[in-house]
Amino acid sequence: MTNNSGGRRKVCIVVNSRANYGRIKTVLAAVKEHPELQLQIVVGASALLYRFGNVQEIMAHDGFTADTTVYTIVEGETPTTMAKSTGLAIMELATIFENLKPDIVLTVADRFETMATAVAASYMNIALAHTQGGEVTGSIDESVRHAVTKLAHIHFPATEQAARNIIAMGEDPAAVHLTGCPSIDAIAQIDLSLPTDLFDRYKGVGPVLDSAKPYMVVLQHPVTTEYGQGYRQIRETVDAVHSLGMQTAWLWPNVDAGSDDISKGLREFRERHPDAPIHFYRNFSVEDYARLVNNAACLTGNSSSALREGAFLGTPAVNVGTRQGGRESASNVIHADYDAAAIRNAIERQLQHGRYPRSTLFGDGHADKRIADILARTELRIQKRLHY
Amino acid sequence: MTNNSGGRRKVCIVVNSRANYGRIKTVLAAVKEHPELQLQIVVGASALLYRFGNVQEIMAHDGFTADTTVYTIVEGETPTTMAKSTGLAIMELATIFENLKPDIVLTVADRFETMATAVAASYMNIALAHTQGGEVTGSIDESVRHAVTKLAHIHFPATEQAARNIIAMGEDPAAVHLTGCPSIDAIAQIDLSLPTDLFDRYKGVGPVLDSAKPYMVVLQHPVTTEYGQGYRQIRETVDAVHSLGMQTAWLWPNVDAGSDDISKGLREFRERHPDAPIHFYRNFSVEDYARLVNNAACLTGNSSSALREGAFLGTPAVNVGTRQGGRESASNVIHADYDAAAIRNAIERQLQHGRYPRSTLFGDGHADKRIADILARTELRIQKRLHY
Amino acid sequence: MTNNSGGRRKVCIVVNSRANYGRIKTVLAAVKEHPELQLQIVVGASALLYRFGNVQEIMAHDGFTADTTVYTIVEGETPTTMAKSTGLAIMELATIFENLKPDIVLTVADRFETMATAVAASYMNIALAHTQGGEVTGSIDESVRHAVTKLAHIHFPATEQAARNIIAMGEDPAAVHLTGCPSIDAIAQIDLSLPTDLFDRYKGVGPVLDSAKPYMVVLQHPVTTEYGQGYRQIRETVDAVHSLGMQTAWLWPNVDAGSDDISKGLREFRERHPDAPIHFYRNFSVEDYARLVNNAACLTGNSSSALREGAFLGTPAVNVGTRQGGRESASNVIHADYDAAAIRNAIERQLQHGRYPRSTLFGDGHADKRIADILARTELRIQKRLHY
Amino acid sequence: MTNNSGGRRKVCIVVNSRANYGRIKTVLAAVKEHPELQLQIVVGASALLYRFGNVQEIMAHDGFTADTTVYTIVEGETPTTMAKSTGLAIMELATIFENLKPDIVLTVADRFETMATAVAASYMNIALAHTQGGEVTGSIDESVRHAVTKLAHIHFPATEQAARNIIAMGEDPAAVHLTGCPSIDAIAQIDLSLPTDLFDRYKGVGPVLDSAKPYMVVLQHPVTTEYGQGYRQIRETVDAVHSLGMQTAWLWPNVDAGSDDISKGLREFRERHPDAPIHFYRNFSVEDYARLVNNAACLTGNSSSALREGAFLGTPAVNVGTRQGGRESASNVIHADYDAAAIRNAIERQLQHGRYPRSTLFGDGHADKRIADILARTELRIQKRLHY
Repeated sequence: MTNNSGGRRKVCIVVNSRANYGRIKTVLAAVKEHPELQLQIVVGASALLYRFGNVQEIMAHDGFTADTTVYTIVEGETPTTMAKSTGLAIMELATIFENLKPDIVLTVADRFETMATAVAASYMNIALAHTQGGEVTGSIDESVRHAVTKLAHIHFPATEQAARNIIAMGEDPAAVHLTGCPSIDAIAQIDLSLPTDLFDRYKGVGPVLDSAKPYMVVLQHPVTTEYGQGYRQIRETVDAVHSLGMQTAWLWPNVDAGSDDISKGLREFRERHPDAPIHFYRNFSVEDYARLVNNAACLTGNSSSALREGAFLGTPAVNVGTRQGGRESASNVIHADYDAAAIRNAIERQLQHGRYPRSTLFGDGHADKRIADILARTELRIQKRLHY
Repeated sequence: MTNNSGGRRKVCIVVNSRANYGRIKTVLAAVKEHPELQLQIVVGASALLYRFGNVQEIMAHDGFTADTTVYTIVEGETPTTMAKSTGLAIMELATIFENLKPDIVLTVADRFETMATAVAASYMNIALAHTQGGEVTGSIDESVRHAVTKLAHIHFPATEQAARNIIAMGEDPAAVHLTGCPSIDAIAQIDLSLPTDLFDRYKGVGPVLDSAKPYMVVLQHPVTTEYGQGYRQIRETVDAVHSLGMQTAWLWPNVDAGSDDISKGLREFRERHPDAPIHFYRNFSVEDYARLVNNAACLTGNSSSALREGAFLGTPAVNVGTRQGGRESASNVIHADYDAAAIRNAIERQLQHGRYPRSTLFGDGHADKRIADILARTELRIQKRLHY
Repeated sequence: MTNNSGGRRKVCIVVNSRANYGRIKTVLAAVKEHPELQLQIVVGASALLYRFGNVQEIMAHDGFTADTTVYTIVEGETPTTMAKSTGLAIMELATIFENLKPDIVLTVADRFETMATAVAASYMNIALAHTQGGEVTGSIDESVRHAVTKLAHIHFPATEQAARNIIAMGEDPAAVHLTGCPSIDAIAQIDLSLPTDLFDRYKGVGPVLDSAKPYMVVLQHPVTTEYGQGYRQIRETVDAVHSLGMQTAWLWPNVDAGSDDISKGLREFRERHPDAPIHFYRNFSVEDYARLVNNAACLTGNSSSALREGAFLGTPAVNVGTRQGGRESASNVIHADYDAAAIRNAIERQLQHGRYPRSTLFGDGHADKRIADILARTELRIQKRLHY
Repeated sequence: MTNNSGGRRKVCIVVNSRANYGRIKTVLAAVKEHPELQLQIVVGASALLYRFGNVQEIMAHDGFTADTTVYTIVEGETPTTMAKSTGLAIMELATIFENLKPDIVLTVADRFETMATAVAASYMNIALAHTQGGEVTGSIDESVRHAVTKLAHIHFPATEQAARNIIAMGEDPAAVHLTGCPSIDAIAQIDLSLPTDLFDRYKGVGPVLDSAKPYMVVLQHPVTTEYGQGYRQIRETVDAVHSLGMQTAWLWPNVDAGSDDISKGLREFRERHPDAPIHFYRNFSVEDYARLVNNAACLTGNSSSALREGAFLGTPAVNVGTRQGGRESASNVIHADYDAAAIRNAIERQLQHGRYPRSTLFGDGHADKRIADILARTELRIQKRLHY
């Protein structure tokens, strides 16, 4: 497995989920095209799993081929299996990095696959770059994000506040590069109008939606640090959305601990209300998800996309519960507790308000080339030192 | 595997190496004796390996029995196998914690087993306590230590500066408890005179040492972030020590990446100079190691024990290279680069100076009960939040 | 994790799936009650997963508690993840056996968890007992079953032919005990009439079935050695069953590679024909499954239960495809290829024929006590030798 | 990791140890040169470990480069860690096979890495070829060898008796190809005289040997099914060899459970008798090992090389204990129990007898091309069926 990189720096990017891909896709392209960089792609975790959408197929369509694929999810969706999946991914990624021999590994955000990538790379003396560091949220993501910052050698925060936080945590300011979030790039570069056939092209379950009429989008993940409460939490959201009667595109949750509880709540609702105007989807392409959100009357749930991409798109959003607790947001977000009445009330306010002006809080759409340039030119130093 | 804890908090302590055990031993005892706590012990990693000394036997002699034992070292002693060992340990510890169901997991310092314990516990929503956070050193330990701090819920720093660093990194000051280091407890509570039969009781290789004459101690580990340079580095120390002609107790290095390089340098020296007055040991009990250091004319190498326990004992120490780079130290330490002449010069200065006064920089010998009391009474909260 | 076994032999039984449990349940009871044996239970693999039915809950209801639980399924349901799940299970079971210290490990049949249990136990010098050895089928199970026979020290074949096969393969005849299959015990000891509320007690999806009317049962698993063809295969069965219009209880497939293809075929059918009189179930208790089969007009698919339990119950059965290829069967079974017309034709013949007389080909219902007695008294020898 | 094989069958050979390499080396070359085959090499397990000799370096010297390297040994050398290493290797090899996509995997003999390779390949529907099946020995190898036979699709036995055994175990005679053992090829094709500088070229510990004088060779591995008795066993051999006073080349044991006990016995002997005329070696190249054995006055221990290569070379050999129990041997072998007097007596008899005539019991030196041709042309069928 020799890598004839012709002196170019080898940058290995690990893609682990649909969300993950959307948040790094433009950087994949920018690294691939950069004359001083060689792109290596590892696809693993839920990005390989059918029930989370065929991310590999979407990537192939975008012109990206995996150098290595690796199954790393230990099934169970409990706190225990999240830990085990992290361990399994570290073991596998170590072998993969040993063979791919990257100069830099780039890891995204704050999920358990992010942690696995960070641990493997840092123990192997490979320079670790990290996006979305310094942000504040709830869930175990909050702990993991900052732990990854302490392992990373190169930081690409999305916001000014995040950059300040990274430096405050003792990172060398010279290693902190405010680039904006690549997730904004992906939506800044495309036509954001709703394809009239979008709801036909993606198969899911439930009544077919009408692209000519107003619709809502819902995406609510489990909160790992509130494991065991997901079933109760999702029922509040389900009740609120159902009571409004508006046609809705609902996405299944991610693979985090508690996902089963969320899914159970959704499946039970489907059994009880097979005719409710709610269609359940597994996945959209990055671009179509942006179009879906851009044209939605309201985006409800606890996905960070409501705050990140939502800010740029100006989509009215209702953020439910603690998962995004403390995260910066633009004016497009109203927060609501796990309570059907509160959620319903917040959605109604957003439906009345309508769209918000564009905010570049999380990026201006040009993070990709900034990141690639820095990866090509920054000095690679492995030994860290608390910088106070 | 039911745990009838009678309402007491279950505190699980993971012991992974000889050094590890010495640094947490008094806390094991304090937790075991605390009426509101139930002690759970997991013994794993190099603590189970013959070539690193039979830690389990020493523990048994001290009255501690493992609830679970687990092999987690992937052999190779390269950066790749350090990463893999971390991943393996996470996977195994997740199953173990799932079955032991601890309320709190306590992890020590900054090694890869520490990281594994921290990742497993934090993903499993188990309160994580951590000793030795906030200190500054070289090696990958520097990154890992601070990453563990960002995962931990309860901090037991050893020094005031370390406590300030933890808070500066964004931890809640209410969760930071300046207790001193338990490694000091172990040596503060015992008779530190040298047993006349000490050099007979421990078997190693090389000429027998005479406890009635002055001797030196050497312990030099690989520096993981300088992987590949260990052979060159150890030869400088070997040359310096050999040139002084003083009888010497030399300990084999730990299991970190690069250990083979160190061992190779030592084995080659032995082959070339079978009659040199250097005896190579695998292990001592915690107490006997303290006695050995306490009565040494000089302690050379890059073990943190030269700085931590050495400060309390007042042992003249020469710290070689970058592994302890940036760590606080008392007046007993002289630093030297990887250079035989510089090391020899520094040792000679220490031999001339003789012993130093006691310093309580790293603890006053009463960390154990402070830690047990806090573990018993502190409120356990799982959700962290950057505290700025 | 001390085991005060008072001199009794410790027998560890690893329960890995709903099918697995049904086939060993009476032995669990017989070992538990045997005065010279101590039962240890490990529950792992799909037995812990919600989507395969809550086996642990059913076990608890039967009075069995796990000594250790362990997640070992690597998600993906591909040939690759079957291999990885086997490897993961070996690693975890090794640690578990190290701590439980069983004298004998008992493993069931021929699945990848069976292989994992067999490899871990045999490398650890633990006497390995095996049920269902010597039978002939298709799928990877055929290879695994015989490989496990070559690792096992004590054999409990179900049929005379199977016993002859084991001896022919070079096993010591003194280690081969024709006991019949414990899966027959479970159904021989209970009232097999259909509870009128059975279809209400188990929740699934689809129209509610009427226990007063004739019904069919279908259970078709993926064939791992025909990976990639499952979707096509299941559509034939679906078409055949649907065309008959009889109310049907359909069970979701197991976790083998290709399971996704089967599930996809079933889900698509449900979307197209939401009103078809087919109810999809995840799981039944061992006893209720026996009652369900006992009273079915026909059992279709490729589950071995059609041949094993079906023989004893006299249930008309249609065995589809190669999965059971070569397995002994009684007169109750008609074989059909992956072809809707052939399957429909075979089912129609069975509906016309009605029930068959009881056959004790796979056991007389008293395997449990025979097995427990042999486990208590047989000499335990670890070193095997090809016996020709 | 694309494989442009131009329609050639991809044959993946997993090299796991020094012994392993010697037994498959000529097949590596024959596959590499075969116009219809493409060679893929995976190097793992102890072949990557310094303390077992740098097999990769020797392979590089022979012109073989690894496509993938993988660390799979869990350190400990106990029955538990053998099991865990097997599990770890399965997990890793699954990912590697997933990416290399071989048509055939070839595995050698009967070690735990052999089992791991066999399980991974067979679950992944990859045709599995196996050398050295059907032979009879002691140790866990006996169980593993026959289990691998039951997983393998293509058999390359070394002897007629072994071929008969494989068929008796129920394998399809059409899949059993009597080729002889490739380990004989390697020694049949070279000049077997002793290089006068051989003892200088390999570094070990102990007095230097004189190539002009008679010498003995000793190689004794742990017997896994007699775990815990290795220390006692090796002391008998050590005493016998030492008492004879002849200069001796002694090889360190392999990585099996109990290896530490053997090594401990050897190290203790070295400490007690530093001047004994015994030199301890880690490794030789395949060819130099053959030369060493070919010119030895006697080969003592329990290595299968005494029986296999020894038969062809006519080297007088003393086989100690049960490890080779039941294995076919030519006239060159005398068996002795674990007893110093018996071993000494047997060696003396061999020293008196001198060399034996060549036997082709285990091969005629042309296995390599036969195997490559069969791999290129045999029909690949995945579904096995007990063939009675």
